[in-house]
Amino acid sequence: MNKFEFQNPVKIYFGEGQIASVAKEIKPGSKVMMTYGGGSIKRNGIYDQVIAALKDCTVVEFGGIEANPDYDTLIKAIALGKAENVDFTLAVGGGSIIDGTKFIAAGMNYDGDPWDFIIGKVRVPAAKPFGAVLTLPATGSEMNCGAVISRRATQEKYAFHNAAGFPTFSVLDPTAVRSLPKRQVANGIIDTFIHTTEQYLTTAGSPLVMDRFAEGVLLTLVEIAPRLLADGERAYDDCANFMMAATMGLNGFLAMGVDEDWATHMIGHELTALHGLDHGVTLAIVWPGTQHAMRREKEAKLLQYAARVWGITEGTPDEIIDRAIAATDGFFRSLGVSTRLGEHGIGEDTIVEIRRRFDERKWNLGENGIVTPEKAEAILRSRL
Amino acid sequence: MNKFEFQNPVKIYFGEGQIASVAKEIKPGSKVMMTYGGGSIKRNGIYDQVIAALKDCTVVEFGGIEANPDYDTLIKAIALGKAENVDFTLAVGGGSIIDGTKFIAAGMNYDGDPWDFIIGKVRVPAAKPFGAVLTLPATGSEMNCGAVISRRATQEKYAFHNAAGFPTFSVLDPTAVRSLPKRQVANGIIDTFIHTTEQYLTTAGSPLVMDRFAEGVLLTLVEIAPRLLADGERAYDDCANFMMAATMGLNGFLAMGVDEDWATHMIGHELTALHGLDHGVTLAIVWPGTQHAMRREKEAKLLQYAARVWGITEGTPDEIIDRAIAATDGFFRSLGVSTRLGEHGIGEDTIVEIRRRFDERKWNLGENGIVTPEKAEAILRSRL
Repeated sequence: MNKFEFQNPVKIYFGEGQIASVAKEIKPGSKVMMTYGGGSIKRNGIYDQVIAALKDCTVVEFGGIEANPDYDTLIKAIALGKAENVDFTLAVGGGSIIDGTKFIAAGMNYDGDPWDFIIGKVRVPAAKPFGAVLTLPATGSEMNCGAVISRRATQEKYAFHNAAGFPTFSVLDPTAVRSLPKRQVANGIIDTFIHTTEQYLTTAGSPLVMDRFAEGVLLTLVEIAPRLLADGERAYDDCANFMMAATMGLNGFLAMGVDEDWATHMIGHELTALHGLDHGVTLAIVWPGTQHAMRREKEAKLLQYAARVWGITEGTPDEIIDRAIAATDGFFRSLGVSTRLGEHGIGEDTIVEIRRRFDERKWNLGENGIVTPEKAEAILRSRL
Repeated sequence: MNKFEFQNPVKIYFGEGQIASVAKEIKPGSKVMMTYGGGSIKRNGIYDQVIAALKDCTVVEFGGIEANPDYDTLIKAIALGKAENVDFTLAVGGGSIIDGTKFIAAGMNYDGDPWDFIIGKVRVPAAKPFGAVLTLPATGSEMNCGAVISRRATQEKYAFHNAAGFPTFSVLDPTAVRSLPKRQVANGIIDTFIHTTEQYLTTAGSPLVMDRFAEGVLLTLVEIAPRLLADGERAYDDCANFMMAATMGLNGFLAMGVDEDWATHMIGHELTALHGLDHGVTLAIVWPGTQHAMRREKEAKLLQYAARVWGITEGTPDEIIDRAIAATDGFFRSLGVSTRLGEHGIGEDTIVEIRRRFDERKWNLGENGIVTPEKAEAILRSRL
């Protein structure tokens, strides 16, 4: 087991009606910038609940943050927040809104071009205080200090972490899941599933507890996914279990003492940057390729995964691994997601461009750098 | 799933050599009161490592805190800390030392008799800053805000919680487990096991993720216990898994959205108060009785527990539950613990006295108050 440090100070309010708790967390009289996306919160009642909770504050709105939040959009929010001298920023939305707000909250404390800290030119500044009302379980951003920012102008997408940039609180009201389109639910399930495997399907010898916790998240997703994607109103407990699984999947807990991979994410980010694919879809495409190509390095963990998550124990190691990969691919497809590059009209050119980018950046990804640019190319090629 | 709030700000340093990190957490020049127990830390090298990490601080020592820390002892530490005007208190020990230090750290901020806040006469005051170096995995106290204090003079033992009394940091160095006597390891395994079941073996409909996490802790303990109690040097990873399981067992995570029981603990506390039994031993005695007596109320969860932790699925519900209770009792006994009251020379008189106390306090324990004083008596009677 690896040495580690861990701290996660985020306060969680979980359950129906908890949006009202925002009033307990933001001082009356504060000037609050409320960040959100395309306006679905105005149709499902969440906007009204947030406004009611902020009745003793002055609210400045910044809507229109897109999925895979864009640098050019966020720069405008930073300018607005600085001009209005806001005390607090409240993200109301899914991972893109919360990630974008992490960039905004840090950017308001920085005088230069905030792209500097995205690309690691300077250290990420401590964020101004911010919180979140989660509307879409997927990224875990509501309870971690990471964010992913896109820059469409240059077709780039990068992650950054900010130990001084956790939300002070997050509200998780499962009823928000009821009105989500199936596509967003499918993406959120896949995102949570693969966050978990990135922290689990690596080397043998991880903490036993963390292995069990990771398997617990995966088993939960496999259990609830068909119900969440069936027609008709979603049950509260299914929504709540989904929301809890997504938060637990990436709040730092599963990572305690483990080796982490993240190659599937890094390769997937390129597919979003180049083709605008949904993040969850890119992961579902890449994941089977990663496990296929790295099966020797990951063998012990893949066999454990096959047995404990899918009950597959018969056959040679390679047969077991192939069946586990096929079961997982089948699970993603059962959610309505196409998992081959060709199904999205993506071919050879893209693979060559991603290889070129990884070569240029000298990126050796995955646990212990085992996913070389050459391996990344092989992963993508197996998904044509 | 229940509504809940959650926050756990404790910073964890985990791994061999992490005691040196104490130096990063306590400002140089601070006056630090170091609290510890009977002196085993002087034999296993931990004392020296802590003193080395505190080389830029002034250290005031307070040793001699006993297992089930006693009010009369702790009052002296509070007086010392006030007289010396200490800036920080560092607990070096197991749950008793850390629990005692929580009482000390809060008591230094209180002018009256600190017993007042143990019995709920006044609200627990915010604690002065304190941290912990864990030497004995068991109670989870290193990452929660609860504590249990005994008062031998009156044969009482009570728990208290203090949301403003988390350790600021805790160091978890698994090598501390290597030199522990088997009895302490057995007690720690049982304590962790039963902390987990108190948050799990209750009502059906808990969060699926939390059920899996709880089962993960239990399965881990069942896996590592024989190795930890075998002769010869304990493997680092076994020690590390034990330490992680104990911390995860009671840091608030498993309790998210679940109904909690704690009847076994409350009954067990009386056995310690009256007879001085080790806490872990009292739990191992009481636990089978609790499940036996409450089998109808807990049936769905007991069947799930039987299947997922012990692989017991055949038979009528009552047969399955009996076998799961027997398997668990057998597990406790395999650790060298006697699980019958009679084996400890405890009989009828004690049962009558505990019934009297619970009647007097009007205690209805367990999830939803289902463990009435009458049920508590039946639980104990089944363990004669």
